[in-house]
Amino acid sequence: MHTSLEKKFQKLGVDNAPGQETRQKADIPDLRGEKLPGRAVDFSHGDVDAFEPTPGTLELFIDGFHTGGRQAYTEYRGGKAARIDLAEKLARYTGTQLDPERNVIITPGTQGALFLAMGATIARGDKVAIVAPDYFANRKLAEFFDGDIIPVEMHYFDFNDRAGLDLTELEQAFKAGARLFLFSNPNNPTGVIYSPEEIRRIATLAAHYGAFVIADELYSRQIFENRLYTHLCAQNIMNPENLITIIGPSKTESLSGYRLGTAFGSAAVIDRMEKLQAIVSLRAPGYSQAVLKSWFSEPAGWIQQRIAQHQAIRDELLQKFQAAEGMRVRPTEAGSYLFPQLPPLDVTIGEFVRIVRLQTNATVTPGTEFGAQFTNSFRINFSQDHKAAVNAIDRLLKVMDRYRK
Amino acid sequence: MHTSLEKKFQKLGVDNAPGQETRQKADIPDLRGEKLPGRAVDFSHGDVDAFEPTPGTLELFIDGFHTGGRQAYTEYRGGKAARIDLAEKLARYTGTQLDPERNVIITPGTQGALFLAMGATIARGDKVAIVAPDYFANRKLAEFFDGDIIPVEMHYFDFNDRAGLDLTELEQAFKAGARLFLFSNPNNPTGVIYSPEEIRRIATLAAHYGAFVIADELYSRQIFENRLYTHLCAQNIMNPENLITIIGPSKTESLSGYRLGTAFGSAAVIDRMEKLQAIVSLRAPGYSQAVLKSWFSEPAGWIQQRIAQHQAIRDELLQKFQAAEGMRVRPTEAGSYLFPQLPPLDVTIGEFVRIVRLQTNATVTPGTEFGAQFTNSFRINFSQDHKAAVNAIDRLLKVMDRYRK
Repeated sequence: MHTSLEKKFQKLGVDNAPGQETRQKADIPDLRGEKLPGRAVDFSHGDVDAFEPTPGTLELFIDGFHTGGRQAYTEYRGGKAARIDLAEKLARYTGTQLDPERNVIITPGTQGALFLAMGATIARGDKVAIVAPDYFANRKLAEFFDGDIIPVEMHYFDFNDRAGLDLTELEQAFKAGARLFLFSNPNNPTGVIYSPEEIRRIATLAAHYGAFVIADELYSRQIFENRLYTHLCAQNIMNPENLITIIGPSKTESLSGYRLGTAFGSAAVIDRMEKLQAIVSLRAPGYSQAVLKSWFSEPAGWIQQRIAQHQAIRDELLQKFQAAEGMRVRPTEAGSYLFPQLPPLDVTIGEFVRIVRLQTNATVTPGTEFGAQFTNSFRINFSQDHKAAVNAIDRLLKVMDRYRK
Repeated sequence: MHTSLEKKFQKLGVDNAPGQETRQKADIPDLRGEKLPGRAVDFSHGDVDAFEPTPGTLELFIDGFHTGGRQAYTEYRGGKAARIDLAEKLARYTGTQLDPERNVIITPGTQGALFLAMGATIARGDKVAIVAPDYFANRKLAEFFDGDIIPVEMHYFDFNDRAGLDLTELEQAFKAGARLFLFSNPNNPTGVIYSPEEIRRIATLAAHYGAFVIADELYSRQIFENRLYTHLCAQNIMNPENLITIIGPSKTESLSGYRLGTAFGSAAVIDRMEKLQAIVSLRAPGYSQAVLKSWFSEPAGWIQQRIAQHQAIRDELLQKFQAAEGMRVRPTEAGSYLFPQLPPLDVTIGEFVRIVRLQTNATVTPGTEFGAQFTNSFRINFSQDHKAAVNAIDRLLKVMDRYRK
């Protein structure tokens, strides 16, 4: 087949993508010492067995099934009742105003929202500003839609009161013609939160240069130590028609198995997203949409408890990483990710990740998935069984010691 | 925003797409005579209340939910156990051989399969041969991926022992450089089946010109009068690496609400489809994938009964259309669609469809969704409550008489 398509799909490699490790068929790496036995932990994504879905979701799904055709065949942008409910809840959550008919779309997961939002805003050759590090699919999506990526660095080790986005680089990207800025807040993979000043500066720059912004707030409900979180959409700095915000119940709420996400904001872009949805997968799974009723309507205290449990895991893992000589890690401020930096090793990050998998039964994601320069970092999702996670990281650190330079 | 994106999304209009009619905001058309009251029937898609999902699917979903993380987070191409089961069942159904690790992918609906298959095979400027009439998304997908469409006519009124594809036009399309031929069998919207000779000729031409073929067999299980159905993939004429077949349980089995589809064939293209899935929506809904166990494993006689019920509806509607002066319709051979041609009217097809909706509470899809030239046809999905469907078509025909030229 085509050379151009071949190139395009080479860039879309998924072998190291979270969850795909079982399909890896690489050579056996340089294994040193004995295997360290222990319960397998897949840190590439959260464990919905350890942190179960919000109570009552299965019952809502069953109700949806019994509702029948109306629930199976919703409008492409999602069922009207669900959108009315969502618009009200998301407006309250973010402190903004949303018209359920114009400003909200229900998507197959937040990945679906991201795909549709980018497909609706990027044309061939468009310059797209993307944070490094950030969610690995951001870069792949920009490439798939033939955008030209301008990376904007985030100096996440240099601060503890802001994400550390290089705002000078961001302005340069806009000056160079970037039409779209895409970022996750809290940041994936580092788990840091953008400060109010950073958010306002992003909005001011985007407004000044007339750029479009996609803000991925997937993890914004799981905030540690009651840190301040700033929704860009509530700042009233940018034209709201130049902004799409993405959020979904797959993570903190553990509803991944239902494939649900939402995007809200620009009516014109949401129209386009719906048109694209019509040819991509028609709609978010119909019966699943009924589950959205539980979202932002969890039992009292449920989210708080979930946050506390995650914070306890984070704290114990942080201690271990901080105690390991030569390792650097910034504490997660929100979400379930940690992005530790390794001491100098005599194997590559790709080899290290495979060695850890073979020797300790722990699966972690290489930093290079989040930007080519992150050759000595890896990401873990610590939404896991607490004890199993701690033990797996103990094993990982022991194996790491065998490869120190 | 962009002119190029604006143009692209203008072509992707969904206002007349099945299921989207409630979002139409057009002028009130020329209404003549009284409204004809009656139960609303949405012929734009099947009614899963009239024809319920295969028995046992909800229980399988619930089992999937209780399976937990393994079911929520499958590989992007779908859970391994489901793929092993599917490969065996689809191989038996089509009379071919499939490796579950290489040749099968589970997708969010057959729409998802179609999107991924086309995204994996079309690059900008590629010539794509598409049947007229055929499923409306085929054309939209080719346009979205910047393909150049070469229409190939199907003379469906001229035959009753074959679909009537213009094979000379198809060869011309390949000669002109078409790299991909995409067709649905049974054809959507006409419900006709390609003859063994047509299928073999398509395969021979594709093999000769080295073209890729996507065969959409979505409705191939619901065949009337035991007509012969020919799976292209079982002909051993083409290189199997140049063929993808698409099928799913959304239609005859009424499992639309779970959003499930599959594609099978070319290992290289399925690899690409998985890479694309990874950025489009990650995976088909995890818990829903458990429902695939019921597919091709329905209770004895269940499919036969469903076919008989649909055939009875088809027969009664056919009689009505055939009795209407100046109307033409070819009997459905498989699936649930009829594509009648109207007598000369003094309103456009777009106006007619809106008039019918306002005056009779029946929703039908204008022929122009299936090719710009079908300005005097409309499509109905007759998978509906039998009596309600018959009454709605009675009303439609009465209203039609008011607009005769």
